[in-house]
Amino acid sequence: MRYLLLLFALPIIGCKYTENPQTALKQVIPKKQIVLEGLNHPWSMAFLTNTTVLVTEKDGSLVKANLATKEKQIIKGFPADLTDSIRAIHFGDNSGIFEVLLDPNFTDSPWVYLSYTAKKDGLGTTTKVVRAKIKNDSLYQHETLLLAEPYTREYFHYGGGMTFGADGKLYITIGERLFWERDEPEIPISQDLRDKRGKIFRINPNGSIPDDNPNFGPSAVPGIYALGIRNAQGITVQPGTSNIWFSEHGTILGDEINILKAGANYGWPNETTGRLRSADYTPPKLEGTQFTPPAWFWHQTVAPTGLCFYTGDEFLHWNNNLFVPGLSRGSLWRFTIDGDTIKSAEELFLDERVRLRKVVQSPDGKLFLLTDEDNGKIIQIIPQSK
Amino acid sequence: MRYLLLLFALPIIGCKYTENPQTALKQVIPKKQIVLEGLNHPWSMAFLTNTTVLVTEKDGSLVKANLATKEKQIIKGFPADLTDSIRAIHFGDNSGIFEVLLDPNFTDSPWVYLSYTAKKDGLGTTTKVVRAKIKNDSLYQHETLLLAEPYTREYFHYGGGMTFGADGKLYITIGERLFWERDEPEIPISQDLRDKRGKIFRINPNGSIPDDNPNFGPSAVPGIYALGIRNAQGITVQPGTSNIWFSEHGTILGDEINILKAGANYGWPNETTGRLRSADYTPPKLEGTQFTPPAWFWHQTVAPTGLCFYTGDEFLHWNNNLFVPGLSRGSLWRFTIDGDTIKSAEELFLDERVRLRKVVQSPDGKLFLLTDEDNGKIIQIIPQSK
Repeated sequence: MRYLLLLFALPIIGCKYTENPQTALKQVIPKKQIVLEGLNHPWSMAFLTNTTVLVTEKDGSLVKANLATKEKQIIKGFPADLTDSIRAIHFGDNSGIFEVLLDPNFTDSPWVYLSYTAKKDGLGTTTKVVRAKIKNDSLYQHETLLLAEPYTREYFHYGGGMTFGADGKLYITIGERLFWERDEPEIPISQDLRDKRGKIFRINPNGSIPDDNPNFGPSAVPGIYALGIRNAQGITVQPGTSNIWFSEHGTILGDEINILKAGANYGWPNETTGRLRSADYTPPKLEGTQFTPPAWFWHQTVAPTGLCFYTGDEFLHWNNNLFVPGLSRGSLWRFTIDGDTIKSAEELFLDERVRLRKVVQSPDGKLFLLTDEDNGKIIQIIPQSK
Repeated sequence: MRYLLLLFALPIIGCKYTENPQTALKQVIPKKQIVLEGLNHPWSMAFLTNTTVLVTEKDGSLVKANLATKEKQIIKGFPADLTDSIRAIHFGDNSGIFEVLLDPNFTDSPWVYLSYTAKKDGLGTTTKVVRAKIKNDSLYQHETLLLAEPYTREYFHYGGGMTFGADGKLYITIGERLFWERDEPEIPISQDLRDKRGKIFRINPNGSIPDDNPNFGPSAVPGIYALGIRNAQGITVQPGTSNIWFSEHGTILGDEINILKAGANYGWPNETTGRLRSADYTPPKLEGTQFTPPAWFWHQTVAPTGLCFYTGDEFLHWNNNLFVPGLSRGSLWRFTIDGDTIKSAEELFLDERVRLRKVVQSPDGKLFLLTDEDNGKIIQIIPQSK
């Protein structure tokens, strides 16, 4: 269903309207419409066409689905070192398959970029980013782009969010992996530049390190772009700009939206808008360290996930707004933005709460939600006039 | 500045657009524009015309103002038993002038309805509702409609919100007046039908009691329509319906929006979405009492105040939305509603916070805010295309 939305900021000349203007003043309201069901905790989605998608299931497979015919097919050749929640059987286990992205130049360069939980027997698990080409519903020519060692036996906060920047570089969020702050080493993981965890990476599509990355000194892990991250799952580019925005999970409160800046330190665990989970833990003083505050933080727990900007034409007043779904509140947040400033925040679908992992826009400007459920769904947000 | 907003839910036939549709897709965003300054904590506003208003100043006077010429004039003849924060000098004193309403049939029946803090020497203060006719910028022919005795020495939570219902009756919120729950008598004030405080009243415009009010039994104060209220300041009718909505201040959290139902008990202090301020206080069991839950409660403190529904044509997507300003967060909340269900909640003007007491719409559909400041302002929300 398509609506033609037209808004004129000036009086219209040369057009006659026979309708009563009041009748024409119809409101367009968003409705949820289930497009596909039966997905095993879907995490992300990449559009091959306007109706054909690659979907990652956190607790399942990489799946190709046709949103029109509802056909689903498992993509063969996923890396064998994948582990997931079902296999690991830990309470609250966050592991599985995360992001899926297509190469910005996919037609000529059919790479698919994937992040997931990789295991190594006897050592544990970590976040891994690979790319592989796709043909006949199979992955081939696999390349490892980032392995966020060490492998550990903590089963939380892998991060795994990815986006291509306006600069063509691949930006990757790696979580801190701890559940309790009392388990932090002397220098907190996210603050330690020798440790890959709790960072945002910027790499070339082939995994090499760009020359113009921020310089953190010789002992820093190559590829770090920002630090002080607890668990960021969503990262996205603001259309028409080079700005990158990312969501971050707090502990007790502390859920945030941040604007990515080269070399920035987002403060975890030394500075947070929430409270530490380990009441007896005090982070060490880090003399001279500057922390970058978030663009937004919630006064409630929402567990924000895969965000995106809206540029479709179905909801005129949503143009260039930032959408952020959440797991724990199960609602969708809409932010209007002016430069780096968040002007307003709307919580949508208050009476239809369901754990949401991702919001994503199709090439033709339709908006879709992925639900974090055993019977995971792809839900389209459709306009209805009232 | 006027904008012509047109939205078509169906393809347009018989009209040609020479513009590029993408250029026409302009967003209308809300901006604040100060219309009038120098008001002493304005509380409410009633429109005599589209540009002439009566404004109550909580800490001042009843003022007539012209929003175009900026002229202000004090209305003479305000009741002499008025007390206000400046005179009382108590920390956090809530007293002063509150609501101003015009008679629904004002042209023929030029009554002005006012709520305010009345004092009685030696006894204290209470909420009082009067009406008086207005002529030559003076009030005359005063009538007392409701005196919420007892007078007490508590200086908090007067309520004072008023609206005319679709039924032509006058609805009035009276606060509970306590600050600490430990000061509650054996039966909490709001739960005691023999006490006028912590109630919503429904009376005829002349102060008499309608025959069809809920029957709370012979010992109940006449005129009670609902109970279990802590401090409701905002009450308004939903256009096109007979529904009445009111805002309510909680203690530590517990800020709510409620739908008014005849005979309903909103639970204070026995049931609240917040926490009691007196940790050592336990409300008595009230066997067989049914409490009505709110339509909405916040997970943060906003101190919601004078609310209204929007029916203007400047912001198409706001049509029939409920607007609720707040004191403590200083932002404006927008709610979309379907029947009794709140579908979405938006917090506006996040980077322009100022204590807000009231949102009110002019007869020609413009939206205005009153700021709770020493230099109190009337701010118009104007549409700007982006």
